[in-house]
Amino acid sequence: MTAAVDDSRLDTTFAALANTTRRAILARLAQGETTVNELAEPFDITLPAISKHLKVLERAGLIRRGHQAQYRPCAIEPTPLKEVSTWADQYRSVWESRFDQMDGYLDRIQSPHDRKRTT
Amino acid sequence: MTAAVDDSRLDTTFAALANTTRRAILARLAQGETTVNELAEPFDITLPAISKHLKVLERAGLIRRGHQAQYRPCAIEPTPLKEVSTWADQYRSVWESRFDQMDGYLDRIQSPHDRKRTT
Repeated sequence: MTAAVDDSRLDTTFAALANTTRRAILARLAQGETTVNELAEPFDITLPAISKHLKVLERAGLIRRGHQAQYRPCAIEPTPLKEVSTWADQYRSVWESRFDQMDGYLDRIQSPHDRKRTT
Repeated sequence: MTAAVDDSRLDTTFAALANTTRRAILARLAQGETTVNELAEPFDITLPAISKHLKVLERAGLIRRGHQAQYRPCAIEPTPLKEVSTWADQYRSVWESRFDQMDGYLDRIQSPHDRKRTT
């Protein structure tokens, strides 16, 4: 397993993603770019709190913002998400072999009667 | 896009992964379980510091530890990594369409001469 992505960049990406509201903001932006006001609507938090979350996402390169003074649309930047996917996929063989072992174990402890009921 | 995994659990997983040493510990444990001493060897940090990282990984369900007093082997627990992969993969269509757009743009700005050189 080699580090395909810069480590400090992954630190920043994971830290930015470790928050439910920030992940919800990304889910909204995946549907298309929007203003901060529109973005804040579904959330029960203040505009300054949303702005703080946007700053964290922007520093992590997960969003970009337009530069017009009043209208600063936010858009998702998917590259760090692809890097997270690539990083996690390094462990695919680990979880696949673990789940194969669990399946084998369940097959062994299930009686033929149980097996019939669950299939 | 629906939340396939519990949000507070993802918060904990992402926070645990936002550290280069903790990710290196997981990479080591993906090769097989080991003791804390063996785990600490390649790192230029103290045993108490390693223990602290292991506690964070254990609380996030990313590792489990044996219960023998002196020999407490650590093993990777891949389920949260699979959840991270599933979460990131929600955005696959976003990064794929972005990279398609970039490819199209590069094709348009390259002269026939350049295109010949790079293919």
